Amino acid sequence: MAPHIHRSPVFTNSYINRLLDAEVYFKCENFQKTGSFKARGAMNSVLQLSAEQKKKGVDTHSSGNHGQALAWAAKMAGVQAYIVMPENAPKVKVAAVQEYGAEVIFCKSTLEARETILEKVMAERGCTFIPPYNFENTICGQATCAKEVFEDIPSLDFLLTPVGGGGLLSGSALSGKYFSPQTKIIGCEPELACDAYESFHSGTLQAAKEPITIADGLRTSLGDINFGYIRKHVNDILLCSEAEIVNAQKLIWERMKIVIEPSSAVPLACMLKHKTHFAKAKIALIISGGNVDLNKLAFP
Amino acid sequence: MAPHIHRSPVFTNSYINRLLDAEVYFKCENFQKTGSFKARGAMNSVLQLSAEQKKKGVDTHSSGNHGQALAWAAKMAGVQAYIVMPENAPKVKVAAVQEYGAEVIFCKSTLEARETILEKVMAERGCTFIPPYNFENTICGQATCAKEVFEDIPSLDFLLTPVGGGGLLSGSALSGKYFSPQTKIIGCEPELACDAYESFHSGTLQAAKEPITIADGLRTSLGDINFGYIRKHVNDILLCSEAEIVNAQKLIWERMKIVIEPSSAVPLACMLKHKTHFAKAKIALIISGGNVDLNKLAFP
Repeated sequence: MAPHIHRSPVFTNSYINRLLDAEVYFKCENFQKTGSFKARGAMNSVLQLSAEQKKKGVDTHSSGNHGQALAWAAKMAGVQAYIVMPENAPKVKVAAVQEYGAEVIFCKSTLEARETILEKVMAERGCTFIPPYNFENTICGQATCAKEVFEDIPSLDFLLTPVGGGGLLSGSALSGKYFSPQTKIIGCEPELACDAYESFHSGTLQAAKEPITIADGLRTSLGDINFGYIRKHVNDILLCSEAEIVNAQKLIWERMKIVIEPSSAVPLACMLKHKTHFAKAKIALIISGGNVDLNKLAFP
Repeated sequence: MAPHIHRSPVFTNSYINRLLDAEVYFKCENFQKTGSFKARGAMNSVLQLSAEQKKKGVDTHSSGNHGQALAWAAKMAGVQAYIVMPENAPKVKVAAVQEYGAEVIFCKSTLEARETILEKVMAERGCTFIPPYNFENTICGQATCAKEVFEDIPSLDFLLTPVGGGGLLSGSALSGKYFSPQTKIIGCEPELACDAYESFHSGTLQAAKEPITIADGLRTSLGDINFGYIRKHVNDILLCSEAEIVNAQKLIWERMKIVIEPSSAVPLACMLKHKTHFAKAKIALIISGGNVDLNKLAFP
C-alpha cells in the first residue's frame, strides 16, 4: 500500500496541550488521499484481489467516505468500481465518486433497498463486494494508520480513535497489540450512537438504535468481526455529547487551522470530558477525515 | 528568530495541480505562531529592541493579525505590549490579544482616533511603536518566509503573495533578489482594494479608496518603504474579483482541508484567472494566515 497512500502528518498544538495538561499528537488523516483514513482499507482490499477479480470489478454501498475511497483505490489499480448510493445522497458526494471514474447506481435510502441492489449488481457483473469495515482486508488496511503513529511517536500512553463500524478502532487495536503493547487503546463514540459502548460494556454485540448524531461517519452499527477484536484488544470506550463534539470540532478548526469532519472531533471531545484521566499523559488521537459540506457549516 | 517561530510546512495538492496544469507549492503560514506570517515581522522587531526599549514596552494599533503577533512576540521576549484596538473590534480578537498578556486600549474606529491614542500611549509610557508593515525590521522578519520557500523548493519560476500594506510582498521580493534571482515575484490583490496595482503600474504611490473587499487583511494602504522595494524588485501585480476570492478559498478548504482566511486565497484566485500565464510552471504561493471568525462563515 505504501506507494499509494500518504504517510499523513502528525500535528501538535501548544494551546490544546495546555488545556489538557497533556502531550497530544494529532494524526491527520484528513490529509489522506480522498480526505479520510478509508483510503487505506479500500486500497488494501483492492490490492488483495486476484487478477480474475480485478477484471470483473468491485462494488460497495456507501454515501460517505468509503464509497469515495473505493472509487479512488479502484481507479489507481485499474479496476472498475460500482458504488450504490441513496437517491438523496448529496450531489457533491456523487460527483466526487464519479470523478474517480466509478459508476454510481442509485437506490432508495433504506438498508434493505441498497442490499437488494448490491446483490443484483454482483449477480449481473460478477464483481467483488468490498465491505466498509466488517472485513479482514479492510481492517488490516486501517491498521496501517496506527502503525505509522507508533513508528513516529514512541512510548505513547494512549491512542484514541473514533468508533462507528469499528474498522479503524479494531485495526488500531491490532496494531497496538503487535507494535506498542504498553499503549492503551480507547474508542470514542457519540452518546447518541453508543452501540459500541454498550456492546463493549455488556460483552454482547448491540445494534445501533436510530443514531442521530451530527458525527455522520459514526452512525453505522459495529461489525461482528470488528467487535471480536475490540472486545479482546481495546482498553475502554468513552462517550461524549453532541455539544461536546461541536465544541471540540470548533477548537480544532480555530486553533489548528485544519478542516475536520465532526466524527474526527469525537476523541478530543472525550478527552476534554475525561480530563483527569489523561492528565500528564502522552496521547495520540486519529483525525479520521476532513470531508464536510462547506455549504452547510454552522458553528454556534 | 528561528528558535521562536515555526518553519511552516509546504503542502501540495494533486487536484489543484491538474486544474492549473502546473506544479504548485503552498507555504502554509496559517500554521505559523498566532495563525499568520505576521508573527515573523513582530518577533524580528521585538528582538531588535535595546534593553532600555524592552523595559518600556512596545505598542501598535491593529484589530487584526499584527496586533495578535506583536502581543505574542512581546510575551515571548518578556516585554509589555499595548495594543490600540477600535471599540467595535470582534470580542474574539480582543480576547486573543489579552490572552498573550497585552494591555488593550480602546479607541473610536477612525484612523485619526487610533493615531491620537497611540501617540498618547507612547508619550505616557515611553514605549516603542512597532509598525505593521512600513518598517525595515518588520519587512526583514516577513522576508524569512520566502527565504524558507527558496531553501525548500529549488528552481521556482514564480512566487506569489497577497499584498495589502506590502510587508510580505516587499520582504519576499528582497528574499528573491538575494536567494533566488531567477524567480519572478508577483503580488496579488483584490480588485476592490487595488492601490498596490495602481501604484505599481503608475509608478507613484496611490492611496487606497475605501477598500471593501472580504479579504480583510488586504484593506490597508501600501506603505512608502514597501512601495520602494516593490517598485524595484517585484515583477508584476495581478488582480482578482471578490467571487474569485471566495471560489479559491472554498477550493483550498475543500480540497486541502486547511482553514485559511480570505486574504490567503487571493494568490490562487489570481492564478486561476491568469491560468495560461502559469501553465507548466513551478510556482510557490504564500498562504498568509488562517484567522477567520467561524461564527460568520458563509460559503455560497
